[in-house]
Amino acid sequence: MARELVVSVDAMGGDAGPGIVVTALLRVVQRHPNVNFILSGDEAVLNELLARNSRLKGRVSVRHAPDRVAMEDKPSHVLRRGRNTSMWHAIDAVKAGDAEVAVSAGNTGALMAMSMFQLGIIDGISRPAIASIWPTMRGQSVVLDCGANVSATGEQLVDFAVMGEAFAHIILGLERPSVGLLNVGTEEQKGNDGVKEAAAILRATSLPMAFHGFIEGNDIAEGTVDVVVTDGFTGNIALKTAEGTAKLVGQFLRRSLKRTWMGQLGAFIASGALGALRRKLDPRAANGGIFLGLKGVVVKSHGGTDAIGFASALDMAIAMAKADINSRITADRAHITKGQIQAVAP
Amino acid sequence: MARELVVSVDAMGGDAGPGIVVTALLRVVQRHPNVNFILSGDEAVLNELLARNSRLKGRVSVRHAPDRVAMEDKPSHVLRRGRNTSMWHAIDAVKAGDAEVAVSAGNTGALMAMSMFQLGIIDGISRPAIASIWPTMRGQSVVLDCGANVSATGEQLVDFAVMGEAFAHIILGLERPSVGLLNVGTEEQKGNDGVKEAAAILRATSLPMAFHGFIEGNDIAEGTVDVVVTDGFTGNIALKTAEGTAKLVGQFLRRSLKRTWMGQLGAFIASGALGALRRKLDPRAANGGIFLGLKGVVVKSHGGTDAIGFASALDMAIAMAKADINSRITADRAHITKGQIQAVAP
Repeated sequence: MARELVVSVDAMGGDAGPGIVVTALLRVVQRHPNVNFILSGDEAVLNELLARNSRLKGRVSVRHAPDRVAMEDKPSHVLRRGRNTSMWHAIDAVKAGDAEVAVSAGNTGALMAMSMFQLGIIDGISRPAIASIWPTMRGQSVVLDCGANVSATGEQLVDFAVMGEAFAHIILGLERPSVGLLNVGTEEQKGNDGVKEAAAILRATSLPMAFHGFIEGNDIAEGTVDVVVTDGFTGNIALKTAEGTAKLVGQFLRRSLKRTWMGQLGAFIASGALGALRRKLDPRAANGGIFLGLKGVVVKSHGGTDAIGFASALDMAIAMAKADINSRITADRAHITKGQIQAVAP
Repeated sequence: MARELVVSVDAMGGDAGPGIVVTALLRVVQRHPNVNFILSGDEAVLNELLARNSRLKGRVSVRHAPDRVAMEDKPSHVLRRGRNTSMWHAIDAVKAGDAEVAVSAGNTGALMAMSMFQLGIIDGISRPAIASIWPTMRGQSVVLDCGANVSATGEQLVDFAVMGEAFAHIILGLERPSVGLLNVGTEEQKGNDGVKEAAAILRATSLPMAFHGFIEGNDIAEGTVDVVVTDGFTGNIALKTAEGTAKLVGQFLRRSLKRTWMGQLGAFIASGALGALRRKLDPRAANGGIFLGLKGVVVKSHGGTDAIGFASALDMAIAMAKADINSRITADRAHITKGQIQAVAP
């Protein structure tokens, strides 16, 4: 029998505390009988929670960490003083080879800083990125960087394209996902230096990639490409703008239906269909930003999520741990030479 | 009686041609009895369209322009060879003092380049910006820059804040609109150099402004502030991402309702409420990007809009022409000294 997969979990990371982590584990252990878990956090609290749930017996071990990273802690602070936190221990289990993947709902900046420090970056990749999965009119797409960096050079965007393509291959099951660079127009002369350089490099290389060229903001929801590449500033703002807009439309819908008795009656009769819509738009279904570019896999769950959302992040982590994404990233990245990058640099 | 207001219209700018412009005028002349119009474009075509509509008699004059700007024309090209286009003539009427405001549904980059060249930039303002109005949970907010520039320094973002505040004062009727800088987090150390510099300048000045600090993408739809300030790259992508998301949710709603007969029946009964939602989300209701920072007012209508949308752009242009936005911008900008800007520059 193959070695069991082990997922390392920061049990103290999210806003709701370790209770939702244990509830999420109860959902996930049934779906994945060959996966075991290491929980990092307050031993007393965790052992008490686990003792109440016999179904987790033998599947979950605990590593004591007396501290936890706060949401307002700066990355520089946690690198200096965070060695006793549950987040540090969770990543350390991956570094030590005891687990294949780490999951945390904690402070994103701290998690990225610790992951980079402890695991390191894949050779040849300039910067890690956070990828997330978006619903589209055609299914799902991958968007990155959703906030690991506050800017990106052309070369860094090219690295994001390589990593996003490998991620979409594994998670969306596409042989050759199409890749687009997010821009303010689709014509070649449009955009800032970063996107223009990245496009020039991607056109010049022998990379086995279905590079589509530039796309615009509305192309994300339309599903024009499988992988949307952008810098972490724009990607983070686009992600949160889209979440805000979906919520706004949902609120407008509820208000419109409540205003008249015909609206209320229609909503009552169509409640099954409206419930299906709610589930479709539920951000918990695809919860998690995946850190790409590290020598090890780290998944960030939304800090404010509940057990259902945290279980989705665990599912994502397990899917990532089963695939060997980094060998595809390294192989693809080798197609891009220093000369090709220098030829288009400013 | 006060001098009548005159609106200068590029009649050949949009995808649909001059037909929708004349239909839009028929809607607008009734609402604004003291406003007259100059149409620039193909004289023969325009005179024939006008001859069929007696209600426009005496309210509309025509200026012949044999050429038109194409959607794919580069700004540099139209500045050299665009003097005979309807767009050039439309802006020229404002420059010559024959009209208070120009409206075009043509190529945005060309319209901005021609407007800057012909009208010039307000003294003290570094770059013009495109503002647009977004629906929010609390009403409406102003977002700028939506695409005039592909990047912005801290000082330029400060100029956008001053211009956006003045615009919200006039169009939303707020005495002192609140202003937020779009960023990847709300903590002071977050973000790129541009937003950090802009925040430092806005905190250091004696500007009479309700500066809120940083906001995130979801704050736009939530209506956290009245004015959202960002660079043109991020703003354009956020705008189009939001439009795409609203369309996506609408499509998910239709699909969900169609899937079951209960959904279809409920939708039929609630059709009035769903129609109200559709009107609320109709992008034609607030159609138009407003060019701020120029010595003259220019309104850009969406290129693909119809007569209803173009009429909204004309309404916006008339509201702008009635107010003296530039004197508020100049007065507010004077509160920011060179020393304050240099103190925070890198």
